[in-house]
Amino acid sequence: MSSDFQSWMKSVQQDVEISLANFLPGSDLIPQQLHEAMAYAVLDGGKRVRPLLVFAAGKLFQAPSELLSRAACAVEMIHAYSLVHDDMPCMDDDALRRGKPTVHKKYDEATALLVGDALQAQAFLVLAEATACADHKLPMLQLLAQASGSVGMCGGQAIDLASVGVALSLPELEQMHRLKTGALLRASVLLGAMSGKQLSDTEVAALDTYSRAIGLAFQVVDDVLDAVADSATLGKTAGKDAANNKPTYVSLLGLSESRQLADQLCQQAHQALNIFGESAQHLHDLADLIVQRKA
Amino acid sequence: MSSDFQSWMKSVQQDVEISLANFLPGSDLIPQQLHEAMAYAVLDGGKRVRPLLVFAAGKLFQAPSELLSRAACAVEMIHAYSLVHDDMPCMDDDALRRGKPTVHKKYDEATALLVGDALQAQAFLVLAEATACADHKLPMLQLLAQASGSVGMCGGQAIDLASVGVALSLPELEQMHRLKTGALLRASVLLGAMSGKQLSDTEVAALDTYSRAIGLAFQVVDDVLDAVADSATLGKTAGKDAANNKPTYVSLLGLSESRQLADQLCQQAHQALNIFGESAQHLHDLADLIVQRKA
Repeated sequence: MSSDFQSWMKSVQQDVEISLANFLPGSDLIPQQLHEAMAYAVLDGGKRVRPLLVFAAGKLFQAPSELLSRAACAVEMIHAYSLVHDDMPCMDDDALRRGKPTVHKKYDEATALLVGDALQAQAFLVLAEATACADHKLPMLQLLAQASGSVGMCGGQAIDLASVGVALSLPELEQMHRLKTGALLRASVLLGAMSGKQLSDTEVAALDTYSRAIGLAFQVVDDVLDAVADSATLGKTAGKDAANNKPTYVSLLGLSESRQLADQLCQQAHQALNIFGESAQHLHDLADLIVQRKA
Repeated sequence: MSSDFQSWMKSVQQDVEISLANFLPGSDLIPQQLHEAMAYAVLDGGKRVRPLLVFAAGKLFQAPSELLSRAACAVEMIHAYSLVHDDMPCMDDDALRRGKPTVHKKYDEATALLVGDALQAQAFLVLAEATACADHKLPMLQLLAQASGSVGMCGGQAIDLASVGVALSLPELEQMHRLKTGALLRASVLLGAMSGKQLSDTEVAALDTYSRAIGLAFQVVDDVLDAVADSATLGKTAGKDAANNKPTYVSLLGLSESRQLADQLCQQAHQALNIFGESAQHLHDLADLIVQRKA
């Protein structure tokens, strides 16, 4: 990873942190505790992979920074809300997230439920309020809604829940992850690119191939890390999938083959970017980052 | 109530039922159980007060029916998701809704959580996909997001939760309801009117006064019904507010003064409509309906 890429990444992460704080309702607004809990769920945490994808894809077509920033924050708010709801006792029942108590532990379950609900609404608000022209934003809002809903992220969660203790095949496992995490990663890439211009079918197809590859790679690496890392490194409870008898790439393929698969997916992602030339360098590097990450 | 109004109401309710079914993801789509549960939460229930307000306000400026239909379904999906989440054990813990088992009773808590999350996304999708011009729809999407989020419906829920066993003053009680139910009722009225044209400040102000009055009246009548009706008539558990030691208009004002207040608010609502002339007849009649309803 070049130092150029690393400093770009750091600056995006810093900008996103500031924008997220700006786009959340002020903690002086009523109801204050809800707003404080929303900020707790969103700020000061995570690698901001989705915002990085938005900004990296924005480089393809010189997208305006205000729209990119709003798209990045909208996607991150959707992601953050899904984590808050995911961690609740009726779902994964997790007490630790990004090294901090989860929202329902820090506050209570009802607050966690409302924090997630309100963050989802805020995500659509942040994107809808961009100053960019309306014709530009509407397809982006549609994409975000589709990627978040029942044929996207929520649908993936539902399949995940139904799969505990069930012997999934590799294609079934892939479909589950394509919805659960893949849909929002794909939306991040496409939102970034769409912030710059209306995409051609060829461009969408290339970005789809890239997104699908990094989405799966992301999950394969997640499964590998869950199997080998400890909770302190991950900032969340490790080994939960095995404990919950959830199907994973590691349980289906073994560790070494899972790692190989991640590398292959990374190469696929790189190849898909060829049509974009040098403007895709950051997307290229992000694929590496996703496969090489340690937490 | 004229027979004209009653047949209009019936036809809107029937049309909305068909549209809601069309705008939900098909139950043949994966994940099937989630889609079945979303339909269970939305279809075949409720008085469709919010869609009625959308269509009645649409009469003011001859709004196109496709946009009205989508706005009505979007608002109703937001309302339906809020009921699903509200009924969960960590919130109101209710087993009965519209005379049927609540979603977490019929399915399970995790499904109820996801049904609500996915319905919210679906609401934004349904509105964003309308064929109306983008400049028209974006302010509507912004309004829907604001009315649903932390300074709207979710915020009202948070205040409601924090108010159990707390001695609220009348203004505090009013603020809570203005967010919890008022924001989405207001959005229904404005979305209907905005489907027809861009509103002047005077028009927004008049519709705000109307919405605020019927919103409060709606809640006052709710409190009265909760105090006097039985569960079979209401289709939900009666007497819960008193049992939960929640502040209500009845506990603050008494029954007879609460009924008087509802009548006064109805008159306020009627007066606010004067500037619109005869095109506001259905909005006028809906104010009556809200105050005179028995369930």
